[in-house]
Amino acid sequence: MIYFDNAATTKPEDSVLGLAARYLKEQYYNPSALYAEGYNLHLELEECRRSILSHVADADDYSIIITSCGTEADNQAIFCGGRRGNIVTTMGEHAAVFAAATEAGRRGVEARFAQLNADGSVNVENLLSLVDGKTSLVSVMHVNNETGAVNDINAIAGMVKAKNARTLFHSDGVQAYGKLPFRLSGHVDMYSVSAHKIGGLKGTGALIKKKKLVLQPFIWGGGQESGLRSGTENVYGIEAFCAAAAERYNYGRHEVNYNRVRELQARMWELLDKSLFERISPGNGSPYILTVAARGVRGETILHMCNDRGLIIGTGSACSSNASKRNSRVMQACGIGQDMIDGVLRISFNPHNTIEEVEEAATILNEVVETDRELTE
Amino acid sequence: MIYFDNAATTKPEDSVLGLAARYLKEQYYNPSALYAEGYNLHLELEECRRSILSHVADADDYSIIITSCGTEADNQAIFCGGRRGNIVTTMGEHAAVFAAATEAGRRGVEARFAQLNADGSVNVENLLSLVDGKTSLVSVMHVNNETGAVNDINAIAGMVKAKNARTLFHSDGVQAYGKLPFRLSGHVDMYSVSAHKIGGLKGTGALIKKKKLVLQPFIWGGGQESGLRSGTENVYGIEAFCAAAAERYNYGRHEVNYNRVRELQARMWELLDKSLFERISPGNGSPYILTVAARGVRGETILHMCNDRGLIIGTGSACSSNASKRNSRVMQACGIGQDMIDGVLRISFNPHNTIEEVEEAATILNEVVETDRELTE
Repeated sequence: MIYFDNAATTKPEDSVLGLAARYLKEQYYNPSALYAEGYNLHLELEECRRSILSHVADADDYSIIITSCGTEADNQAIFCGGRRGNIVTTMGEHAAVFAAATEAGRRGVEARFAQLNADGSVNVENLLSLVDGKTSLVSVMHVNNETGAVNDINAIAGMVKAKNARTLFHSDGVQAYGKLPFRLSGHVDMYSVSAHKIGGLKGTGALIKKKKLVLQPFIWGGGQESGLRSGTENVYGIEAFCAAAAERYNYGRHEVNYNRVRELQARMWELLDKSLFERISPGNGSPYILTVAARGVRGETILHMCNDRGLIIGTGSACSSNASKRNSRVMQACGIGQDMIDGVLRISFNPHNTIEEVEEAATILNEVVETDRELTE
Repeated sequence: MIYFDNAATTKPEDSVLGLAARYLKEQYYNPSALYAEGYNLHLELEECRRSILSHVADADDYSIIITSCGTEADNQAIFCGGRRGNIVTTMGEHAAVFAAATEAGRRGVEARFAQLNADGSVNVENLLSLVDGKTSLVSVMHVNNETGAVNDINAIAGMVKAKNARTLFHSDGVQAYGKLPFRLSGHVDMYSVSAHKIGGLKGTGALIKKKKLVLQPFIWGGGQESGLRSGTENVYGIEAFCAAAAERYNYGRHEVNYNRVRELQARMWELLDKSLFERISPGNGSPYILTVAARGVRGETILHMCNDRGLIIGTGSACSSNASKRNSRVMQACGIGQDMIDGVLRISFNPHNTIEEVEEAATILNEVVETDRELTE
């Protein structure tokens, strides 16, 4: 089986599985407990937090709240960061931001959604035109999960701050953390990340935030995560997140991986039959995602036909498949025409994928779409 | 090392560790994905939800929302269940309910806290006197996590409904699920449970709810958990929760365990030197918790001295240790005197504990408290 739906979730790193016995069988204690076994775990988790943060931000300037997932981190940013006036976000956001902002709108904070460019990146001019003196929060995703388009969040945050210095800037970095070479400039106040997209476990994410930012808790209780996220710490999940992030970042691996995955993406596009596929992903986007549209066929049909032949790919966001909406909001906002929108396929990579897998996958995709078109013509 | 802090967290069952390779190495797919591997996981998780629910409630009448922990489940119940008028809860609640209700109070819903009896159970008369026509939610914990006192939630819920039929009734069942023989009557609308207290993994809990109850999501996004809790499903955590609950319940084991643990609790109390220890836990409480006070000594000192001798016990709630408050709110509400409140120790059991461990622990406790009293006299 060739797995090219790594933007939906990735296979945990072997090192993560290797930690299971240690943190489930031996170090199962509650890190809030006062005895040595608990306190030692507390210290270990402090080190994990520092490490996860260090890959993208300066520990003098930023701190980190471990959450149960990227979605929770996004919800905390939106609901606790955008409490007054209006929230400005984009039509390209993952549902975790989009639905939270929409709900905030129902609770009396106005929600404003900026338009997208054709590749899924935000139209910055339109975004800035929505920011005014009453904007409490701007949220712009780092890498669009459906197209791979990269928003220059450091620059956009700077422009937002120039317009209203009191506006908080959040970015959903779930498809960027562990993948793109970048660091947060001081203009970005909050940044959401997720473990299971980079070889960690489902059930762990984080909200990276400026140290100076006074943020309300989203989940209230025993006061874990410096009072900002209550609930017994998910020790194994946090250790696994730390280990997976280290696998992606240590020894400059994120740069090596980036270049390798760029080759995979380029080779895939090179091999796809241009009479069958149209490229939606931009040339300068994240190499981890290649979104294409197969004209005149249904993406879901292609997905199942590929599945039968041993190739796993996605159709847009896995998360939106629950919504039972036939067409993607994001694709519509990109202006993808009606003849193509049904045929959107997302091929997403992992540093462990190989050129051989790409070549086999391209053959399958070309044959499957060709066959399906012949059948439906 | 003898581990008697099982109310803080428990060692995962071996069967749970046995699932790691399967769900991390092989079945790592996103259950929201459309291909067979994702959809099969979706079906498996449906079965897990049914199974976790079935142990305490009727699937015709109740459904289940998987959350990231008991705290999140409590927060959803409080914030989404108690949106108008007033919320009535108790002075004995875990911080996950107490802090959430307090915060709801700051957001304009009045929070009312009922008094406790000396054993930590709620004063039902006082509770009912606080319920009126504007009460949107009543929340009463099933087993008090600091004393083990059991509230008869089915009966209390019935009395609440008799006073105001539109009031929702929630109970934090984190210290009851997997431990007490009971089933939810139809009067209980919401019930919070947690995996890591019964041999599952940290990072998974659930809110069991009446099917008919229309509840708002607490975490918004991709629409997982029937739209009521977004975020990629924590597959391994859910499978582990299901396996751990089955270990506790299948073949009537919860009754066997209950009787076994009752023997452990009784033997422990029998062996403790009554000139040193006063019992706080009631005789008819959960056998999984034995809370005692050592007069004139500090619980924290005793905890560390026991720790040095290979015995792990707790002092009240592990979760409140973060709060840096010297005295427990719950113990104060129980009316525990100033001479005893500093010396409170919580000894909490697991069905795998043995009589030999109890005997060794009692010897250590008697000697340690005796020594500490001699030193401080």
